[in-house]
Amino acid sequence: MTNNQLKDEVKVFSLSSNKPLAEAIVKELGIDLGDCTIKTFSDGEIQINIEETVRGYDTYIIQSTNDPSDQHLMETLIMLDAFKRASAKTINVVMPYFGYARQDRKTRSREPITAKLIADLIEKAGATRVMAMDLHATQVQGFFDIPVDHLNGQPILADYFIEKNLEDVVVVAPDHGSVKRARSFAERLNAPIAILDRRGPRDTVEHGHLSVVGDVENQTCILIDDIVDTGRRISTGAEVLIKTGAKEVYATCTHAVLSGIAKQNIELSPIKELVATDTINISEDKRFDKLTVLSTAELFAEAIRRVHFEEPVSPLFNY
Amino acid sequence: MTNNQLKDEVKVFSLSSNKPLAEAIVKELGIDLGDCTIKTFSDGEIQINIEETVRGYDTYIIQSTNDPSDQHLMETLIMLDAFKRASAKTINVVMPYFGYARQDRKTRSREPITAKLIADLIEKAGATRVMAMDLHATQVQGFFDIPVDHLNGQPILADYFIEKNLEDVVVVAPDHGSVKRARSFAERLNAPIAILDRRGPRDTVEHGHLSVVGDVENQTCILIDDIVDTGRRISTGAEVLIKTGAKEVYATCTHAVLSGIAKQNIELSPIKELVATDTINISEDKRFDKLTVLSTAELFAEAIRRVHFEEPVSPLFNY
Amino acid sequence: MTNNQLKDEVKVFSLSSNKPLAEAIVKELGIDLGDCTIKTFSDGEIQINIEETVRGYDTYIIQSTNDPSDQHLMETLIMLDAFKRASAKTINVVMPYFGYARQDRKTRSREPITAKLIADLIEKAGATRVMAMDLHATQVQGFFDIPVDHLNGQPILADYFIEKNLEDVVVVAPDHGSVKRARSFAERLNAPIAILDRRGPRDTVEHGHLSVVGDVENQTCILIDDIVDTGRRISTGAEVLIKTGAKEVYATCTHAVLSGIAKQNIELSPIKELVATDTINISEDKRFDKLTVLSTAELFAEAIRRVHFEEPVSPLFNY
Amino acid sequence: MTNNQLKDEVKVFSLSSNKPLAEAIVKELGIDLGDCTIKTFSDGEIQINIEETVRGYDTYIIQSTNDPSDQHLMETLIMLDAFKRASAKTINVVMPYFGYARQDRKTRSREPITAKLIADLIEKAGATRVMAMDLHATQVQGFFDIPVDHLNGQPILADYFIEKNLEDVVVVAPDHGSVKRARSFAERLNAPIAILDRRGPRDTVEHGHLSVVGDVENQTCILIDDIVDTGRRISTGAEVLIKTGAKEVYATCTHAVLSGIAKQNIELSPIKELVATDTINISEDKRFDKLTVLSTAELFAEAIRRVHFEEPVSPLFNY
Amino acid sequence: MTNNQLKDEVKVFSLSSNKPLAEAIVKELGIDLGDCTIKTFSDGEIQINIEETVRGYDTYIIQSTNDPSDQHLMETLIMLDAFKRASAKTINVVMPYFGYARQDRKTRSREPITAKLIADLIEKAGATRVMAMDLHATQVQGFFDIPVDHLNGQPILADYFIEKNLEDVVVVAPDHGSVKRARSFAERLNAPIAILDRRGPRDTVEHGHLSVVGDVENQTCILIDDIVDTGRRISTGAEVLIKTGAKEVYATCTHAVLSGIAKQNIELSPIKELVATDTINISEDKRFDKLTVLSTAELFAEAIRRVHFEEPVSPLFNY
Amino acid sequence: MTNNQLKDEVKVFSLSSNKPLAEAIVKELGIDLGDCTIKTFSDGEIQINIEETVRGYDTYIIQSTNDPSDQHLMETLIMLDAFKRASAKTINVVMPYFGYARQDRKTRSREPITAKLIADLIEKAGATRVMAMDLHATQVQGFFDIPVDHLNGQPILADYFIEKNLEDVVVVAPDHGSVKRARSFAERLNAPIAILDRRGPRDTVEHGHLSVVGDVENQTCILIDDIVDTGRRISTGAEVLIKTGAKEVYATCTHAVLSGIAKQNIELSPIKELVATDTINISEDKRFDKLTVLSTAELFAEAIRRVHFEEPVSPLFNY
Repeated sequence: MTNNQLKDEVKVFSLSSNKPLAEAIVKELGIDLGDCTIKTFSDGEIQINIEETVRGYDTYIIQSTNDPSDQHLMETLIMLDAFKRASAKTINVVMPYFGYARQDRKTRSREPITAKLIADLIEKAGATRVMAMDLHATQVQGFFDIPVDHLNGQPILADYFIEKNLEDVVVVAPDHGSVKRARSFAERLNAPIAILDRRGPRDTVEHGHLSVVGDVENQTCILIDDIVDTGRRISTGAEVLIKTGAKEVYATCTHAVLSGIAKQNIELSPIKELVATDTINISEDKRFDKLTVLSTAELFAEAIRRVHFEEPVSPLFNY
Repeated sequence: MTNNQLKDEVKVFSLSSNKPLAEAIVKELGIDLGDCTIKTFSDGEIQINIEETVRGYDTYIIQSTNDPSDQHLMETLIMLDAFKRASAKTINVVMPYFGYARQDRKTRSREPITAKLIADLIEKAGATRVMAMDLHATQVQGFFDIPVDHLNGQPILADYFIEKNLEDVVVVAPDHGSVKRARSFAERLNAPIAILDRRGPRDTVEHGHLSVVGDVENQTCILIDDIVDTGRRISTGAEVLIKTGAKEVYATCTHAVLSGIAKQNIELSPIKELVATDTINISEDKRFDKLTVLSTAELFAEAIRRVHFEEPVSPLFNY
Repeated sequence: MTNNQLKDEVKVFSLSSNKPLAEAIVKELGIDLGDCTIKTFSDGEIQINIEETVRGYDTYIIQSTNDPSDQHLMETLIMLDAFKRASAKTINVVMPYFGYARQDRKTRSREPITAKLIADLIEKAGATRVMAMDLHATQVQGFFDIPVDHLNGQPILADYFIEKNLEDVVVVAPDHGSVKRARSFAERLNAPIAILDRRGPRDTVEHGHLSVVGDVENQTCILIDDIVDTGRRISTGAEVLIKTGAKEVYATCTHAVLSGIAKQNIELSPIKELVATDTINISEDKRFDKLTVLSTAELFAEAIRRVHFEEPVSPLFNY
Repeated sequence: MTNNQLKDEVKVFSLSSNKPLAEAIVKELGIDLGDCTIKTFSDGEIQINIEETVRGYDTYIIQSTNDPSDQHLMETLIMLDAFKRASAKTINVVMPYFGYARQDRKTRSREPITAKLIADLIEKAGATRVMAMDLHATQVQGFFDIPVDHLNGQPILADYFIEKNLEDVVVVAPDHGSVKRARSFAERLNAPIAILDRRGPRDTVEHGHLSVVGDVENQTCILIDDIVDTGRRISTGAEVLIKTGAKEVYATCTHAVLSGIAKQNIELSPIKELVATDTINISEDKRFDKLTVLSTAELFAEAIRRVHFEEPVSPLFNY
Repeated sequence: MTNNQLKDEVKVFSLSSNKPLAEAIVKELGIDLGDCTIKTFSDGEIQINIEETVRGYDTYIIQSTNDPSDQHLMETLIMLDAFKRASAKTINVVMPYFGYARQDRKTRSREPITAKLIADLIEKAGATRVMAMDLHATQVQGFFDIPVDHLNGQPILADYFIEKNLEDVVVVAPDHGSVKRARSFAERLNAPIAILDRRGPRDTVEHGHLSVVGDVENQTCILIDDIVDTGRRISTGAEVLIKTGAKEVYATCTHAVLSGIAKQNIELSPIKELVATDTINISEDKRFDKLTVLSTAELFAEAIRRVHFEEPVSPLFNY
Repeated sequence: MTNNQLKDEVKVFSLSSNKPLAEAIVKELGIDLGDCTIKTFSDGEIQINIEETVRGYDTYIIQSTNDPSDQHLMETLIMLDAFKRASAKTINVVMPYFGYARQDRKTRSREPITAKLIADLIEKAGATRVMAMDLHATQVQGFFDIPVDHLNGQPILADYFIEKNLEDVVVVAPDHGSVKRARSFAERLNAPIAILDRRGPRDTVEHGHLSVVGDVENQTCILIDDIVDTGRRISTGAEVLIKTGAKEVYATCTHAVLSGIAKQNIELSPIKELVATDTINISEDKRFDKLTVLSTAELFAEAIRRVHFEEPVSPLFNY
C-alpha cells in the first residue's frame, strides 16, 4: 500500500473553488493533481475538459461550494457527468465546505429544502461517495443515499486553543441551535458553556434582544460556530459578552465564508482572534490580522488514503 | 366544500396504533372511518384487508409508529402497497408520532440512519404525502421527496400553560439539542430560558454531570422536550432544577412514549405535572395522576380538510 | 482460493433470528462471525452497531424473517442501511426462510402483494444480492431486480428418506398448489404421487371437504410442503390418508414455522415423523419427539464460497 | 356517468394484434376507436402516428402480445412513449393475452425471467395501469408496481359448459402446475378433479410417462389450461384419458395460441371440442370445426367502464 | 373555459432572467404574475420565497437559462423543489431559452453532455413538463422523460421578413449543422439556400477557411441561426457573402445571447439588420440600432392556455 | 495484459443478427465466442440459454438491431436480463448498428422518440455500457445515462477512397441534415463539399424538387450517408449529380440496411460503387457487384481490448 499504488489507482482533480487546499492534499498524498481545464465561454457557460484518462480510476473531485455557489455547484455536476460517461471506477466528491447547507428544512410554508435538493443533484449526476466536514446539521448526511464520510474539524481548532494555554475558558454558543457543538468543543477544552440567547427572527441585530445565559464574568470566552458568514452574529455576540463582564473573546469556526462586510464587522468588534480552517479559500483581500487559518489538508489526505485502501475512516471522525 | 364533498372524495383509515385519535379526527371531519381489518396470523405475519373500494379516492392512513414500532411500520407499508395496487388517487400517511426519528444521523461509524431509511421505505411503498407533528429534527422533512406537512403541536401545549396563569416562568431545555425548541416555546409564554447542561454520553444518569446554565432560582420551570421516553431525563432534570433553587417544575412534551419505568420515574420525581398530547395512544396502565393529555384531533382534522380542499396549510404551522 | 482469502475479503454477520445456523455456516467456511450488537431500546426501537470495519468487504447478512417477522425484517433493513453507508463492497442477504412469501399475489380485491413489497424494501435499503431457499413460489425470484440465488433444500430431505429405505412410497401433495413440488420430490424417490383435494377457502378444516386424488391404499405416504405452519394441513391430511387406507404417513418440509398449536396438532396426528431443516431456528419448547431437523449449513456455506470465488452456483440448485 | 362523459374523457386505441376484439370492446362502450396508424418501413422498423389529440385523456391501448410477440410488444412500448410525451392523463394497457408469461421464473441457471423484464419495460415506457386476463401465474401481478386489474375468464368458459348440461363431469389438470386452476373451474361445475401426471422434462411426448391420477372411468373429462399453444399437451392428454376409460374429452382454455401444427394435433386427437376465448385473434386459417370461440369483449368493456368511473372492479374478478 | 377558470387553476411565476417576457405572457393570459421573492444572501446563496399558496394549482415557472446560466438554472431547480414540497398539482417549466443546449453530445473524449445533465436535474427537482422554443438540436427533447412542448419561433421571424417584401432572397446556413434550419426557413420565404462552408475547428476565425457553397451573387442573403452568441460567426459570414457578391445581408435568430463584444462585431459588420426574439431579455446596454426584437409572448401564452385546457398544442408547432 | 488475462476475465457472446462480425471480433481478440443458444418456440417467443457461467465476468453482447429490429432488440433485452440475474460483473452491449436511431426527435405532434425509448429499455434491462458506431445523430449518446463508446467508422471508409487515388473529388451530402458528416469526410480526403438540396417532405421522389448546391461539374462525387436504406436517396441523388455535370458518382455509408428494392435502385442508378461496412450482416441475396464491404472487426476488437484493460479509448474515436 505504497504511494505507487495510490498513483496507479487514484486521480484527484481540483475544480476552481479551492485549488490551494487541493494542492496541499495531493502533496500530502504524494501524487499530482489530475489535469483538467475549466473554461468559461463569453456567454457564461462552463466547459470542462478532462485532459487525461480516468477509465477505471478511483477519482476524487475537490470542490467547496462557497460563493459563487451556483457556479461551483454546476462545475461539480458537470464534472460528475463527464466522469460518469468517461467510465471512472468510482467518483468521490470531496466538499470541504458544503454550500446551501443552512437551507436544510422548511422554516415556513412553501420553502424549498435546498440542501436536500443539492444532495439529490449530486447523486443524480453520478457521485458514488461524498466526503464533507462539519456539516451545518449532521442530519444532512441522511439527505444522501450514497456513503458520506463526515470529517470532524473541531480537533484542529481545539488543538490550537489548547496550545494557547488560556485560563478560565467558557465556550459560548452563539445561538440556540449550536449549543450541542459548543458542548462538544467545551469537552475538548474541559470547560463550561454559556449561550447567547437571541429572541426574534434571524436578521434582527439590535442588542436589546440578546442576553447571555450562563456565567461569563471575568472569563475568556470562545465563541464557536460552524460557519462565520457576515460575522455579525459573533461580533454582536462578542460585544454582549464583554458588556456582561467577559475578560476577552475569541471566535472560532470551521468554515470562514466571510461575506459582505465580515472583515469590518470582526475587525471593529471586541473579538481578539478568529481561528478558522481553510475549507474555503480565503482571498487575500478578505484576510485580516485577527484571522488565523489552520489547514485541513492532512486530515482530508488521510481520509482519502484510508478510503482508498479500505481502512476504517472512523478514527478520523473523533480524531 | 361541504362535508358531503369530503365524504365523496376522502376515505380515512386507521391502523392499529392509535384508533382513538383516528376516531376523534374523523368525528371532527364529520365522516366515518374506512373499513379495514388487520389480522395477525399465528406465525406473526400481518394480513390487511380493505373492505371497501378506494379506487379514485384521496386516502388517509392514520398510524403512529410507536412501540411495537416494527409492526406498526410494517402495517403502514403493507397498507400502502394495498392502496397503490387498488388504484387510490392519493395516499396520505398521517403519522402523529414518527418512530425511529431519533436515529436521524450517524453519531459513530457504521451506524444506520434509520429515520432516512424509514422515509425511503414509506415512499417506495407508495405514499404520495406525509403529515407529521413535531419531528425530532426538522431536517427529517428533507428525508422525503414527497410533500410533508409538518404540524406544530406547541401551541396546544402553550395554550394550556397560558391558561394556568403561572408566574415567574422559565422554560428549560433538558439538553443541548433542544434549546431551539425551548426558545420557541418561551416566546409563546414570554419567558426566559435555561439549559440543563449534561456532560458525557447519552445514557449517563449521575447528577454530578448535570448542571443548570441560566437562572432558575425561585422560578417556575417548564421542561420542554419533543419526546418523553423513559422519563429519566426530565426526572433527573427536575431534581437538579429543584436543588438549584427552582420553585416548582412542570414538564411538557408532544409525544408521550413513556416506555419502561417512565411512570415510576416521573411519579417519584419533583415534576408537578407532565402535559402531553395524544399523538401516541397511552394505554390505561401507563397513565398516572400527574399526566395531562391534550388532544391533537382538531388540528389533524383541519389539516386534512385543508389539504383536501387545497387551501393553504401554512396557517396551521404557526397556529 | 484458500480460507485466508475468504477471511480477507468476506465478512458474515448474523442478525437475531437464527444464530445457530449462522454459526454453523461460518464454521463450514472456516471463518468467524462478524461482530455486531443488536440492541432494543425500552421503547421497542432497534439499534444496530457494527463493531468492525466493513469498508471494501463482501458482506453477508444471515437472517430468516420468521416470527416476529416485522422485527426480523426491520433488523435486516436497518443493517442494510448501515452497511450501505459504511461502504461495504457488496451486501448479500442470506434469507434461509423468506417470511411473508405466501402473500405473493392478489387473491381478492385490494389485497397487498406483501412478498413483492418486501423484495422492494430489501432492494431499496441497499442489498446487492439475495440468497434464499425453497421460496413458496419460484416466481418470487422475479420480484427482485438484483440476482437471487435460489437454493434447493429438497435433496437434503430426499437423501434422508432414501436412507430410510421405505417401501411402497407415494408422495402426497397437501393441496392443489403444491403438486409440482410433490412431483419433483417423487422423482428423487422414484415414486408416484397423490393429491389431497381440498375444496373451499384456505381456513376450512372440516374433513368432509377433503379427499384423496390418486391411489394411497397400503402405501407409505410422504406429505411434502415447503412450509409447515400451524401443522393443521398436514395433520388433517394425514388423518384422511390413513382413513383412505394409507399404511403410514410421514411429513416433510423445508421451513418449520410451527406456529400456534403446531406441536400439539402434529403430535396428536397420525404423522409418524416430521422431517424439516434448520432454516428457521426452532426453540426448545417448540421441538417434539416426532420432529427431525436436518442442517442446511453446509449447502449455504458452499453457496457463499462459490458466489465469492465466482464459481457457478448452478450445481447447487439441483444438487 | 353516461356514454357522453366516457366519450369526453376516454380514448381507446387498438394496436395491430387484435383489432376485432378492440372493436367489440368499444362497441360495448358506445364509443369509437381512436385514430392511429401503424406503419412498417421497408427496413422493418415500426412508426406509430396518433392522429388525434390525447392531451388530458384517459387512454386505453388494447394489445395482446401473441405471435409475433416482439413486434406486438414493441408496438406497445412505442405507443406508450408517444402517449407519455403527448401528455395523456393516464395510460392503461389492456393486454387480453400477456405473451412471454410462461417465462416467469428461473428453471435453470442463467435463465432470464422474461415476464418480469416485460413488466419492467411496460412500466418504464410509461404505462400507469395494466389490465390483463388469466395470467399464467397470478404472481405476475407482483412483477408490476403499477395497479394490475386481473380479470377472470373462467366464468365465460364455465357458463358455456354449464349450458351444455354435461353429466359425470371430471375436470382434468393437464399438468402439475395447473391443479389449482382445475380445482377452481371444477367448483363452478360442481365436479371432482383429476390430474395428468407427467414425469420428465417439458418437451417429452411419449405416452409412457403420462398417467392419470384420479378417477376418470366413464366420465366426461374437461381438460382446462390457461394457454393452448401447440395443442400437444391436451391432445396426448386426451388420448391417455380415453385409454384410461374416459367417456369423452373436452378441452378449454382462455388463450388460444394455437401455434405450429396445433390445428392438426387437436383435429386428430380424441378431443371433442376446444372452447377458447378471443383474447388472441385467431386467423381464419387457424380455425377448425372443433373450435368454439367465446367473446371477452363485454367483460373488458365493463372493466374499462368501472375503472374510468372509479367503481370497484372487484365484482368482475369473481364474476 | 374563460380567464376566470384560468385564474382559479393556474399560477404563473417569473424567476429573474426574463421578467418582461413573463409579464407580457400573463398579460396575454389575462392573469397576474404569482408573487415570489428571490433573495441573494451576501454569501451568494439564493433563497426563494413563494408568497402565495400553490397547493393544487397548475404552476408555470418562466425562466430562460442565459447568462448567468448557473444561477438561473439553480433558481429554477430551487423553485421546483419548493413547488414540489408545496403540493403544486403540476409544475411546468417554461424555458424560452434553454442554456447549455450546445453541449448536447461528446465531441471528444471525456466530455460531459451538459444538456442531458440539465434535463436530468430539472426532472429530478420535480418538473412535470417543459416548454421550450427552438432547441439547438431537436434531439434534446429526447433527453427528457417528461413531455416537452417544443415551440417554433421561425414563423415569427419569417413573417417579419415576408412583410419586408425583399427580392432575390437566398437563405444562408452559417455552418454545416444548420442547413436543415435554413432549408425550413427558406420554405417559408420560398427561397433557395446557400451554405457557409467553414473548415477546421469551431474557434477559427480567419476568412481563408470560409467559402460559400451555392449561388449568392447579387442576392439578398438572410443568415439564419438558432443562437447568436458572440456574433462572430454571422459577422465573418456576412463579410464573406458580400465579398462573394451578395447584394446585402440580413441576419436572424431566435435566441439573442449577444455575449462579449457581439454588439461591436455586428455593428462593424456588413449585416444590415439582426432580427431576433425576446426569449432572452436583452439589457439596454446590449441593444443597438441594427437590432430588431420580436415578441414571443403571444405564442407562449397561447401554448400555456392550450396545455391548461388540454387542447392540442400541435397547431402551434407549425404555426 | 495478455490474451490469457482477457480469456480469464472477458466473455463475448453473439446474438443472432451478425454472427460473422462477432466471430471476426473474437478472432481478433484471440478468444472464443461464449456459448449460448437462442431458441424460437413455435409461438414465436424467444428463449435464450447461456451455456457457460458468466458470474464475475466482464461480458460483451454483440448485436445489431437491424431487420427484424424488434426481435433483435428483444433478444438483446432478454440476454441482458439473463446476464443481470446471472451475476455478470459488467454487461457491455456492442451495437454495431443501432436500429430505430432515425426516430430520435418529435417531427410532429404525438410522435414517440423511439431511439430514446430503446436507450431506456437497454438501461432498464441491465446494460452497464454501450458501444456503438456512427449513430445517426450524435445526440443519441445523451439518451443514455451509462457510458457510451461511440466509434467512428469514417476512417475505414476514407482510407479505402484514399487508396483509390481519385482526382477532382467532391464530397456530397445527400440532404440538409448530413452536411456536417460530409464536411468531416471531406477533410479526410482534402476535398470540397456540395449539398443535394431537397425541398418538401421526406418521401417525395420527383427530381424537380432536387437541386445541387455547390459545384460538381466534371467532378468525381462521393455521396456519403450514415445509413443506406432503400437506396432511393443516393440513387436519385446520383442521377441529379450526373445531370448537373458530375463525371462519376461513388456512394459510401457505414450501415448498409439495403431494405426493399435497394439492390435494384442502386444497380440501376449511375452509382459506380457503394462502399459500406459490415456493421449489418448483408445476406448473399442482398449483395451485388457494385457493393464493397469493409470490415469493422479490428476496430471493435481494439475498442473492447482497451475498455477491458482500462486504456483510453479516445484514440479510436478519431483514428
